[in-house]
This record gives sequence, C-alpha cells and structure tokens, in this order.
Amino acid sequence: MLQRPEHQVAGHEAGSGTLGPLIDGSGNFYKPLNPSDERGAHELAFYTSFYSDTQVPQSIRSSFFPSFGGTRILPVPDSPDLLLPHLVLGDLLHAYSYPCVMDVKMGARTWYPSASEKDFAKYWKKDLESTTPLLGFRISGLQVHHESGRWKPYRDKVRKYTVTDVRQSLRQFVSKNPDKTPPDCALASSVYGGSNGILAQLLQLKSWFEDQTLFHFYSTSLLIAYDKGGKAAQVKLIDFAHVMKGEGIIDHNFLGGLCSFIKWVSEILTDSDPEAAAGPAEPEATVGPTENETH
Amino acid sequence: MLQRPEHQVAGHEAGSGTLGPLIDGSGNFYKPLNPSDERGAHELAFYTSFYSDTQVPQSIRSSFFPSFGGTRILPVPDSPDLLLPHLVLGDLLHAYSYPCVMDVKMGARTWYPSASEKDFAKYWKKDLESTTPLLGFRISGLQVHHESGRWKPYRDKVRKYTVTDVRQSLRQFVSKNPDKTPPDCALASSVYGGSNGILAQLLQLKSWFEDQTLFHFYSTSLLIAYDKGGKAAQVKLIDFAHVMKGEGIIDHNFLGGLCSFIKWVSEILTDSDPEAAAGPAEPEATVGPTENETH
Repeated sequence: MLQRPEHQVAGHEAGSGTLGPLIDGSGNFYKPLNPSDERGAHELAFYTSFYSDTQVPQSIRSSFFPSFGGTRILPVPDSPDLLLPHLVLGDLLHAYSYPCVMDVKMGARTWYPSASEKDFAKYWKKDLESTTPLLGFRISGLQVHHESGRWKPYRDKVRKYTVTDVRQSLRQFVSKNPDKTPPDCALASSVYGGSNGILAQLLQLKSWFEDQTLFHFYSTSLLIAYDKGGKAAQVKLIDFAHVMKGEGIIDHNFLGGLCSFIKWVSEILTDSDPEAAAGPAEPEATVGPTENETH
Repeated sequence: MLQRPEHQVAGHEAGSGTLGPLIDGSGNFYKPLNPSDERGAHELAFYTSFYSDTQVPQSIRSSFFPSFGGTRILPVPDSPDLLLPHLVLGDLLHAYSYPCVMDVKMGARTWYPSASEKDFAKYWKKDLESTTPLLGFRISGLQVHHESGRWKPYRDKVRKYTVTDVRQSLRQFVSKNPDKTPPDCALASSVYGGSNGILAQLLQLKSWFEDQTLFHFYSTSLLIAYDKGGKAAQVKLIDFAHVMKGEGIIDHNFLGGLCSFIKWVSEILTDSDPEAAAGPAEPEATVGPTENETH
C-alpha cells in the first residue's frame, strides 16, 4: 500500500539505496528519519515544538503547515528488512487529481549562523549558483499539467535557473500552454488571484512573519500547489531540518524573500489583467555609471 | 560661515587631513566629493537619477530623502587652498535645538553583488562583527539629550553593539534618563508612537519598499531624529554610495531589515504601554536539541 509520491518535485526520492518519503494513499505522507543524519531528529524536534507551542495561532498551523501525527516505524522500500521511524505528515496533494506543484526555497541565504564552516561553504556555494541572494528565493522544482500531459523540468536545469527563468516558470505554472512562448497565463487570476488564491494566502503568511519571533526558517520551502483547472490553490511550508529559535528577532531572511516572491506573483497578476497591462511601461532605472548589479 | 556639523553620529568627520561634511547654518549640508574615491561620484549619480525619476512618488522623495541641490565648489577646512566639489543636501537637523539622532545601517548584508573580492571581504567582516546578519540592521551611532547634557557613546563601543545593546539603545533613545537601568522610555509614545511618529513613518516607508524595484540600497542608513521633548520625529535615508539598479527585483535585503527594525520599535511601544505590558509573557521557544542560533 505504501508507495513513492508521484508528484514530488524536489528533495530526496525513495529508491534503491536512497531514503525518501512514502505515501499511503489515505492522506498520510511518511518522511524517513535517518538515524545517521541529525537533520531528521531536528525536523522531528521542530514539529513537536511547533505543534505544542500555544503562541502559534491555530489558523497559521492549519493553513500553512502540514498536519503532524508523530512518528511511525515502517519498512524501507527495496530493503524491507530495514525498519526506520518516519515522520507522519499530511499528504498535501492527497485530494488532487492533477496536481500542479512548485517548490520555492525561501531566503536570501540558506545557511544558518550556527552552521559549521564546512556546511556554510556548501550552502553558500549552492546559494551563489542560484537566484537565492539576488531574489531572496529560488525555485527548487515544479510540475505543471496541461492538455496533453505533465511537464516537469529536469532537476539539473532547475538548479541553473536564472532570474529570467524564474519569471518564466511563474508564468508557465499558471498557463494552459506552458511550452509556448509566451505562455498564456490563462489560470493566473484563478490560481494566483481571488480571495482564496495564492497571493491572498501569501499575504496572510507575510502578516504572521512580520510579527513572529519564535522560529527562523532556514532552507525551508514554500510548496505552491493547485489542481489542474485552478481549484484548491494552497501555500504550505515544508522542510524544517534547519529551523532555529527566533530568540525575539523576526525571520527577516525568510520575510524579505517572501516579500520579493509576493511582488513577482503580483506582477504576473497585473500583467495578465488587460486593463492593468495598458498602464505605464516597465520601470527602467539608471543609477550610476560605474557599477551594475550583475550576478 | 561653514562649519562641521555638531550632531553627526556616524561617517567621516571633517578634520585635519580628513574630508567630511560641512553645514552653513542656513539649512544646507555639504558632502565632499573626493575625486580619488568613486563612492562620491556614485552617490552624486544616485541623487541625480533619483531626483529625475518620475517613477518615484513625490511624497516618498520629500518624506524620506534629503533635499538635493546639485553640487558646489567649496574650500576644504584646514586646507583652504584645496577646492572640492560638494553635494548640496538639506541639513536634516537644521531646525532642531537639541537633536536626538540615531544612525541605523540597514540590511542583513552591506556588500553588493558587484563588489570586488577585496571589498566583499571587508564589508562581510564588518557585518559579521556586528548585528547586521542577525537583526538585518546595525546601529552605527547615536546621541541623546537629557536633563544635564548630551550623551553620545564612543564609536568603538557602538561598533561592538550586541543584540542586547541594540535593544537597550532603542530604549535609551526615547528615555529621559538614558544613563539609568532600566531607562524610563518616557518619550516612547510621543517619538515612536502617534500618527506622525517614527513607527508610522517606518510603515509608510515599508509600503514603498514592498513595491519599488528601482533601487537596491546597500550600506544605506536610516537617520532617526527628533528634537528634545519629542517634537518633529523624522525618518530619512542617507548614504547612497552603494545604491544599485533594482532591475525589477525588490530590495528584500533592506526591506527584511526594515521589518525587523519595525518589530523592535513596536515592541518598545507595547512594553511602555502599561495596559499592553500586562499581557502575555515574553516568548520562549525551543526548537531542537542540537542547534542554537548563537552569534
């Protein structure tokens, strides 16, 4: 009954010799806790703390985080003799027939102050190769359904996404013809817009981040998802292996990236609205003669 | 008639062998353009561009930026034979009798993507020695007037400010007894609060930063100032030697730090309001067993 999630767009995949998440088809998502990797223990500690902290509003928990049902011992696929504890989480895509999914890793940096020098170097190198420092986020993966099937760019392509690619992907994600240039953004108003759309949810999340000083979410992703046709758009936070205590300070690293992401989503909405599109032209700023922000 | 500004709390000071700003007592502030330092040329280019860009709302320009009157050739103090061009800016403290001033350098990093490796190393080292990565801002200097005189901490002390020192300084800044522990925060509601107070101005500035993609303000400071007694609180941006083109991306580095600063100011307002202070205790979050965000 346990199987690999078909619509995973980023992160480790379960396979021969590799640990990865499983789903049971009944709404549960199992994430293995590798005993040789402290990240699993750290993520478990986060979920336990987060779900018992009375300072977290219930609406935030239920709107923006996977449900958490403790841990469960399960056999590892391809190694059924090997039993491992797994986090029991809600399967965010359970109710979807044709899930369109995007994984957006948040923050202008993914390293955290207490990282070892080695870890710092590893994370920072990855950051610099991505749009992370420039945009305050990077796309880690996506899949879109259209007329004829499912489109999912290769991981090594996504890893090299430039700012232009990010803009393009955010448009493709809400297009019925994601493989055309330019994509039609036909679903922008139903997925990104509206009172229950992605943008409205992002703004609600932003309000919480402007206030909360409990947690700093390093290397955490936004999972943006909807069912083909534009139904049930949702924004969820996932991946908490590097969450730190906030200690009275807001998570300006995540929040800055969130504001940046919000601006990009807003612009697609504006551009795909014919009335707004007839407004002023794109900004073109000149600052100084000697320096340019190239990356 | 030209003299050194008495209430400068950060940056270069004019002196023997050192170039620094001058004021004329009639509301003008002159900042020297050192021909051997491209930062001056860059700041001039910013002012010229900023004041001619029709996409910048007039209210933002007049509320949050010094006025700009081009350049003027002036003799350098102590070297009257040396004539140098100076930026002609508004003297932000001209109308004040007893200016209380704080310089807050914004952003979780002060280096910019196009910095040379040498510059990057220099800026990043200073950042890591300060609260910049942790808070998204650092205090570069301050002065407060109280009953008996003016209090201005030594620069080498300010340079080593910790998170605790920042909290303390933001309280001292609005206290009638800044040298006492704890300071009384007697001016918090009149300086930070109210419809024309610092917090209201910061929130207006934040709205613009959530939208504007024209400029990225690296190493730029907020000048927070009021006249002793709580009158005429103002927030201004100063120091534009490292402003870059935004190229369609919001300045999440500045904005994240601004949100963080806003949260700190809000907390002082809440804490100094007796009704709000009777509310819930300080947050105390525990996340994981192995990592702590220490700095």
